[in-house]
Amino acid sequence: MNAPAATFDEIRRILRDLPGPDLTAQTEVVRRQVELTKPPGSLGRLEELAEWLGAWQGRARPRIERPRIAVFAGTHGVARLGVSAYPPEVTRQMVQNFLRGGAAINQLATSIDADLRIYELDLDHPTADFTQGPAMTEARTANAIAYGMMAPEPGIDVLCLGEMGIANTTSAATLCAALFGGSAADWAGPGTGVTGSAFATKIAVIDQALAQHKATIEARDPLAILAAVGGEEFAAIAGAVIAARMGRIPVLLDGYACTAAAAVLYAFDPHALDHCRVAHRSAEPGHKRLLEAIGQRPLLDLDMRLGEGSGAALAVPILKAAAACHDGMATFAEAGVSGKS
Amino acid sequence: MNAPAATFDEIRRILRDLPGPDLTAQTEVVRRQVELTKPPGSLGRLEELAEWLGAWQGRARPRIERPRIAVFAGTHGVARLGVSAYPPEVTRQMVQNFLRGGAAINQLATSIDADLRIYELDLDHPTADFTQGPAMTEARTANAIAYGMMAPEPGIDVLCLGEMGIANTTSAATLCAALFGGSAADWAGPGTGVTGSAFATKIAVIDQALAQHKATIEARDPLAILAAVGGEEFAAIAGAVIAARMGRIPVLLDGYACTAAAAVLYAFDPHALDHCRVAHRSAEPGHKRLLEAIGQRPLLDLDMRLGEGSGAALAVPILKAAAACHDGMATFAEAGVSGKS
Repeated sequence: MNAPAATFDEIRRILRDLPGPDLTAQTEVVRRQVELTKPPGSLGRLEELAEWLGAWQGRARPRIERPRIAVFAGTHGVARLGVSAYPPEVTRQMVQNFLRGGAAINQLATSIDADLRIYELDLDHPTADFTQGPAMTEARTANAIAYGMMAPEPGIDVLCLGEMGIANTTSAATLCAALFGGSAADWAGPGTGVTGSAFATKIAVIDQALAQHKATIEARDPLAILAAVGGEEFAAIAGAVIAARMGRIPVLLDGYACTAAAAVLYAFDPHALDHCRVAHRSAEPGHKRLLEAIGQRPLLDLDMRLGEGSGAALAVPILKAAAACHDGMATFAEAGVSGKS
Repeated sequence: MNAPAATFDEIRRILRDLPGPDLTAQTEVVRRQVELTKPPGSLGRLEELAEWLGAWQGRARPRIERPRIAVFAGTHGVARLGVSAYPPEVTRQMVQNFLRGGAAINQLATSIDADLRIYELDLDHPTADFTQGPAMTEARTANAIAYGMMAPEPGIDVLCLGEMGIANTTSAATLCAALFGGSAADWAGPGTGVTGSAFATKIAVIDQALAQHKATIEARDPLAILAAVGGEEFAAIAGAVIAARMGRIPVLLDGYACTAAAAVLYAFDPHALDHCRVAHRSAEPGHKRLLEAIGQRPLLDLDMRLGEGSGAALAVPILKAAAACHDGMATFAEAGVSGKS
């Protein structure tokens, strides 16, 4: 990890001035859609996705030719509290697995012909135990955001975001409760598969953190909440979402931890995620509640709960199909097909 | 269309002797899945799909390298009764559009790198108006089934089935009511977009057909019901499903008309569709009811209602991803990743 120093004030300034959709491109997409050889609306969400891609790529003929998957890995102080089914060292071991090509996301990246980048945060220095104090300082949080901002590069036409971090569904649940209200029981789930007394520990850790950071939560500053109970990979994902917006790159969000990271921006401005779609509804129960909180309907629902950007990657072919239909289909006039009786 | 003559008795004989899954391959898939570097079950339906592909391809390492999309086009006597939003000639016009590459399914086939074949039934001779008598003779039905049996060729590793036929959701709704009970109101929907008095006509046509064929329906012979109220593309799809089973080729079924065609085989034997997955839940309301009747949970739900095999094609990348993860992922032992605490 090596990124320019940043401050929350600089990030807030960027967030207050995010670019909007390209309404000209969007209008051209809508106009073409009704002329294509199909009953109006019969391609369902593919039509909506073509319009969304057009609006956020700024192209009347959107395309998905260079997808990138960016996976951010971070280590968590709370992992030592026994909130995960796996030991803390699995984060680093899985990063090695990513780099050697052995993880699910490697196979998915190859399968959809996407560029896969692994971004390691400061894995040797886990965040602080957030039941005792803030997980991160403002400087560490802001620098992780700045680091994440490097993931979207010019030429990428969709950015899939994902994460790896043992204990990060504990962080995600705490973050969601802090941003949207509710208690640990509302937002916690089995994550990698915790049950019984480990699950009770997870619930207790989250509620303890919510009590510890009550004042920060009540002050309703999303970036301060991110620093208090988030993690570096959450901050980096938020940064990637911001930079993608500035670079006119639509974003596919993965499951619970990834969406929770992006939800920090939603809490700042509900339009901050307009260029994002949640790709897959995680089997982690808190994700469903989070999707309702941020008004997103995921594209896929395949009972997955792996993270790594796996759900986001799986939705790329749907975007590609939406763009291909929009671009390549004949119009009724071109094809000599009769319209409605 | 040019296929060997067949009879219902021959088809029944084949249906009574369908091959089952390869349990050895299936067991090997299950055994490997638990060793891969992911929390058990965290790939959700991708794990189930790997197992299903293994069982029906007969391979411990299933693969999706040669998908085929087969689209069957047929013309319907009831189209003249005003049950569709489009005139009857659109079936042939859309076939021309398929052959020239201008339809949605052409773009989808290119997008997923699949072989696309268009199978024209006897388009110049629509089926008979089934409110007055059977849509097809036994010979015509059986020959269309035999024709469909030519679609799955050796070497294909998944077969996507789809259809084109103005008025065929009227036929699908009648077929479903005849096979599973209920009236027109339970099974009819807007299809290509019929509303108001045209929708009332569609309902009346279906109920009239159900009354006309009461004796055939009560005799509960699925093939006779198919002949009475189905269409040639329905028969051909049923044939393709049967031949795929015999050739160890898993099948992705598309929306309402396609699933209704396959449901004829389900009515004959509930295990006849074990090698099939419904790819997409159509926005056509009868499809949801049909999925419940045959116990299928679709892979996608994207509000589409186009037909042409479009929903089936969109699910191919999911199968490809399932096979890729199963084949390419490292095991915990290979990757040196710690197991559960």
